[in-house]
This record gives sequence, C-alpha cells and structure tokens, in this order.
Amino acid sequence: MATVEELCKAAKAGQTALATASSERKDTLLRTIAAHLERDATSVLTENQRDVDAATAAGLSPALIDRLRLDDRRVHALVNAVLDIVKLQDPVGEVEHSAIRPNGLRVGRMRIPLGVVAMIFEARPNIVVDASALCFKSGNAVVLKGGKEAAHTNAVLARIVHGALEATGFSPDVLALLTLRSDVDELLVQQDTVDLVIPRGGESLIRSVVAKSRIPVVQHYKGNCHLYVDAGADLDMARRIVLNAKAQRPSACNALETLLVHESVAAAFLPVAFAELQAARVELRVCPRTLAAVAGQIFESLLREATESDWHDEFLDLVLAVKVVTGYDDAVAHIRHYGSNHTEAIVTEDYGRANRFIADIGASCVLVNASTRFNDGGELGLGAEIGISTSKLHAYGPMGLRELTTQKWVVNGMGQVRS
Amino acid sequence: MATVEELCKAAKAGQTALATASSERKDTLLRTIAAHLERDATSVLTENQRDVDAATAAGLSPALIDRLRLDDRRVHALVNAVLDIVKLQDPVGEVEHSAIRPNGLRVGRMRIPLGVVAMIFEARPNIVVDASALCFKSGNAVVLKGGKEAAHTNAVLARIVHGALEATGFSPDVLALLTLRSDVDELLVQQDTVDLVIPRGGESLIRSVVAKSRIPVVQHYKGNCHLYVDAGADLDMARRIVLNAKAQRPSACNALETLLVHESVAAAFLPVAFAELQAARVELRVCPRTLAAVAGQIFESLLREATESDWHDEFLDLVLAVKVVTGYDDAVAHIRHYGSNHTEAIVTEDYGRANRFIADIGASCVLVNASTRFNDGGELGLGAEIGISTSKLHAYGPMGLRELTTQKWVVNGMGQVRS
Repeated sequence: MATVEELCKAAKAGQTALATASSERKDTLLRTIAAHLERDATSVLTENQRDVDAATAAGLSPALIDRLRLDDRRVHALVNAVLDIVKLQDPVGEVEHSAIRPNGLRVGRMRIPLGVVAMIFEARPNIVVDASALCFKSGNAVVLKGGKEAAHTNAVLARIVHGALEATGFSPDVLALLTLRSDVDELLVQQDTVDLVIPRGGESLIRSVVAKSRIPVVQHYKGNCHLYVDAGADLDMARRIVLNAKAQRPSACNALETLLVHESVAAAFLPVAFAELQAARVELRVCPRTLAAVAGQIFESLLREATESDWHDEFLDLVLAVKVVTGYDDAVAHIRHYGSNHTEAIVTEDYGRANRFIADIGASCVLVNASTRFNDGGELGLGAEIGISTSKLHAYGPMGLRELTTQKWVVNGMGQVRS
Repeated sequence: MATVEELCKAAKAGQTALATASSERKDTLLRTIAAHLERDATSVLTENQRDVDAATAAGLSPALIDRLRLDDRRVHALVNAVLDIVKLQDPVGEVEHSAIRPNGLRVGRMRIPLGVVAMIFEARPNIVVDASALCFKSGNAVVLKGGKEAAHTNAVLARIVHGALEATGFSPDVLALLTLRSDVDELLVQQDTVDLVIPRGGESLIRSVVAKSRIPVVQHYKGNCHLYVDAGADLDMARRIVLNAKAQRPSACNALETLLVHESVAAAFLPVAFAELQAARVELRVCPRTLAAVAGQIFESLLREATESDWHDEFLDLVLAVKVVTGYDDAVAHIRHYGSNHTEAIVTEDYGRANRFIADIGASCVLVNASTRFNDGGELGLGAEIGISTSKLHAYGPMGLRELTTQKWVVNGMGQVRS
C-alpha cells in the first residue's frame, strides 16, 4: 500500500501533464469519464447498494441514507454534470491585466492550475466524479478523502475515473482516493505537494482541519443566511422571496435561516407570510414581538419562541427563525453578529438603503430584492461549482473552474534590465 | 495591558469604518501619516538610535544594523512611499465580471477589504508605516508583530500612525503593534477576527507560522531564482541580463541565484560573462563542466566548485551558482527540483522554447529575455507592494493594494425567485 505522502507525490508528478494539456484533451478525458460511468452504471448501483445496506444495518438516519443512495436517475444526473463541465470554458492560459510597461516589457497575469487539490468530505457519492471533472478540466490533480459510509461507491467511481485517465493517456495518479480516518492527519502535512484543502462537512470537521492543516484551507462553512424586510418594502415581493428562499430547497446552504422584519411592516407582513410558510409546513421560531403579532393564527405545533441558539443555527430544514427589528441598523447589527459570511439579502424599495446594505454587509453574496438561493455557481454564471466558500482568501462565494486556478505573471522582454 | 485577543477584536471592530470610508477620507489619513512622520522625524531618529545602540552593544552584524538604521534620507523615503500610495487607485468597490443573467438579475463581483491583516516581520523599521498605509488604503486593519531589535523605532512609528488615525477621525485600534515573542502564538489562533497572516522573514519563521496558524497564511518565501541561457541565445543580451539580475541589488528576493547554461554555448558565453561578474566581485560556485570551461581565467578566490546546498540556497549576496545543462529539458528539471516558485527566466531566440518555458514553469513570475529583477510590484505596474508571495492561493507574486482585497458577489434583483 502506498502511503499518503507517496500518493500525494505521485499526484503532483502526474499533474504536470494535466497542467499543460490542451482543453481538447482534457475534454476528451471528461467525455470518457461520462461514457464509462454510463457503461458501468450497473456495477456502480451494485456497490452503492452495499453501502446503503450497511448504512441501514448501522441505523443511520433516513435523510443520510437518502443522500447516500444512487439510482438510475442520479447516475444519469452525474453523467450529465460531467458533460456540462465539458461545455465550460477552460480558464487555464487566460491572460488578464496585460500591459506594455514604459520600458517595453509586455506583462500579464496568466491563469494556471493550483496543482494538487485535496477534498475531505462526508457521505456524498457524487463528489468523486464531480471533483475529478472540475479539477481535471482546470488542470489540477485531486486527492479525495470520503466518508466510510460511501466506501464501496467511492471506490467503484474512482476505478471508473482511473480507467478513463488510462484510456486517454493521463496518469491515473492524478486521482488519489484516501479511505482511512488516520489518512486525514497525514494528508494535512503534505504542504510540499498539496496546494489546497477543501473540507466539506460539519463544523467540527472544518474546525479540526483548520487547526491541523499546514496546507491552505478554503472553508465551505455554514450558511446562516438572513433576509431583511425593510420599512416600505414591496410586501408581496418579500413574501414570494421568503417562501422561495426557505422552502424551495431547505437542505441547501444558501437557504434562508433567519427572517428579519422592520417593526413598521411586521403587522402587515407577518400574518400573510406565515400563512404561506405554514402551508409549506415550515416551523417558525420567533422573537416575542413576532409571537404577539401572529399568536392564534398559526398552528401551535409549527410555532414557538426562539432561543439564543436559533439565531446561530443553520437548520438546513423546514425551520425559520423570525425577528422583528427596530430598523436598518438593528438588522445589520444582527446579521454582523450572527451571520456566517455566506449569503445575506434585503428586500427594499429604498435606493439609499439598498446601496448601504451592499456596502455594509461583507458576506460572500449580498442580494437586493432576490432570493438567497441565487448564491450558486450556476445561477451566478460560473457553471458547475465545487461548493461555496466562506473563506475570504482566494475564493469567496461559489468556487467554479476559475477558482481552482491561480495567476502567475508572464513577462516578455527584448533584453530589458533594471536600472 | 490588552491581550492579543482583545487587540485583534478591537482592530476588527475599528475596521468597519475603514471598510466603508471613501477613498478621499483614506487618502487624507495617509497624507496625515506622511505629514506627522515628517513633523516628528527627530523623535523617530532618536528612538531609532536607541535600537541601533542596543544592536551594536549586542554585537549584531553590520548588515543587520544597517538595515535597522534610519537617517534623514530614509525617513524622507518613507514619507514619499506613503504619498506614492495616496496616488494609487483604491481597489475597494470595483466591480468585475458583471453581467445580466437570463432571469434579469444583475450580478457582479465587488472588491472589498480582507478585514484584519496580520504581519510578522523581523528588523525592518519601514514596515510599520508601509504596511499601515497599504492596509488602510485598501480598507483593512493591521496587526503587526515586529522584531525586538527595532522595538523603539516601531513604537514611535506606531504612535505617529495612531496620532494620524485620531486626527482624521478613525479608531486608533486599526493598528495594533505586538511586541512579545509569545504574542505570536496567541495571534495565530485569532481566526475569528484576523483574516490573513503574512510572515516576512527567514525559512524557520515561515515554517513555524505555517505549522501553528489557524488563520490563512500567505508566504513570502525565498527566491531561489534561475536564469537559463538557451542554445542560440543572444549572448550579449544574456550577459547584460545576468549581470543585472545578480549584481544590481543582490539582497533582493528577485535577484538571480543560479545560472543555467546550455552546453552548446558554454564555451562562448561563460568566459565573457564571468569576466564581468568577476569585475563586479561576484563569487562563483560552479559545476565541474563550468570549472573546466573557465579554469585559469578567474581569480581563485572568486571561484569554487558548487556543493549540493549551493543549488538550494538563496544567497542574497554577491554569490552565483552556475551549471552547464545538456538542454532545455535538463534546465526545466533543475528549476522544478530546486526552484522556490518565485522568479524564473529564460534567454532565448527560439519562439517555441520561449512559449514552452512560459507553459512549463509555474513560478509566480516567468520571464523571457528580461532580468529577474522585474518581478516587483512597481515594475509590473501594481505600484507599492507589501512583498512577493510564493503561495499560490489568493495572491501569487507581488502583493499590492488589490491583493489585500477579496471579492464578494453583489446581486441586484427585482423580486426574482429560483425555480
């Protein structure tokens, strides 16, 4: 068995060829991954069933088992996701900020792959394929550490990717799949070969990676996303946005978690908004002023007073915290205190407050009069994403192909020396 | 005495006002720093003399004492450096990649300050002022940990900056100066308030920061810079570039450290180049083939056979390692093995090899037919820089104002929800 250090070194060595491969060759690799995945769908489903059986026997939650399970439709979606990445423009080689300096030097910043990207993730069987496709297209090698719940699925998917790499003349070393929990500690000190670590998972995983890693970490941390309904807001618009942001896909990190409502519109807005949220089976955890405004209107089973932790939590479920605020500054103070720098939105008709909100809030995505669900690579025009970064360094917000690259300076001279 | 945690929290709290301050107000702050520095030059020189006296008594090296010493000319240069930063364009608020999405959403990436930037540095008394000016102009607070050799100088400069902050209505908390060695460990776990750490100094300082930090680190690591003289190169051009890259300012991180020469031009090139390098008092540490080519021509005191460590070392002095290579691939393999991802150059008349070199070498700056000394913020058009990053994440190469910012997504809608 190769050690983690050896696997990372081999990934780096293999990456040299990916770094300078043409987009055409990289796209051929991705198309081959998609074709082999389609061809081997049956064995993927067989291996996945072993993971699902083990998870069921171990008594994992139905939600987790559902996330783990693949079926024909999901495998087909995975194939299409790879083919969608083929369609994206390859960022490698793009030159920005190019200029001729006064001494005649031609300078510019050229996009190049990061090198070796490591991801540590929990039970999500799509990541082996998604991450490979995004990393290869951007010229990077990838080292993955998946959860043990998906061990058989991850292994068969890695075999498919390795086969596609070999079939298209690339080194299979550019995908390394780690499986042991102890591999993580070993991985996090490979700073000489690994350029970036992305932990995807719960708070404790991310904190432990940040504490141990000598490799730069881009965190995809929780989305405690807020929406503030301003005085004078279009309440019909606010109602539609709140419902969409909370209920369209509550398990997404860009789903709404806390609604802040200006006191001057609370009485007019909350009963109407809550009727719709109630119909969507959204549980409401509310401040005392909200409670007073809607008491008697909502089924008791869906309404209770919020505790301090409700303002902090990312529910990722049909649960919404609601607070009446005394004004714009109160809303901004709440967001600054409890927000997670993920996604923050305002609904307002006031030009000045829209602009102030954009300036005052430093989250990775700040929205005016739109659903928080738009903080997404596809919706913002990046194409496929590897996740949404809440780290300010390097990539803040959705991380697509471009965010898996860096820029080097390229200088073309005619013998210039410095005076 | 405030703890490191309290100082970092206060810096973050004070930064909110800097983040949204107009360029005009920030420039007024910088002009005030320059004016107070000029006004208080005498006390700066007095305090600096105390550091110089202590360093002399402690027997520090003349080179170190020279780096520590301020005089009228150097204080004036510091004033001018701040005024030069006033002239640079403020990157905060710039919107890039803006687009109208198919659903009518207006999206774009807006530059915002990183937040709180920490720097750990050794005896360089200019950094308190330089780093404050660059960080404030880009809307960031700054936490500095200086070397104890410059303690009095750093303290008086920090007092001047604090006075300018107060005089212009900003919180003095946005510059924190740490002084104890033990403060560093404390600083490196302030990930909730500090957004970036930049260690400036020797390898052991940088390695220890990377090992301990929970805050993202951008390394300004050594520049083991190479220049490869290709077969068929313009040897007169090569000679001028080598001399400039090595001898113009040998203490700079972008100075040349290893010269690689194609075997087909070694006999014609090395004697001529070495005559000039000898005149500039450059010591040569050479491979056996080089030795054979020039033996008898060079004073023995300036020539010796290279050891393995000479290929690794950043001399930062009038010392040059020289190796004859068998061809382009041999040169690239040497650079990949020994290079530090800082600055790499080729001298060639061959179109294909120029382009291959640009593609094959992943350093932060790759040059064709130009001196390595051009990897510099001023020379590349960034204006003042805080240093040259060899970290691929976030900022690779010279770090100017723009590299002290990040980008958030701004989305302007008219009630859009996601379907």
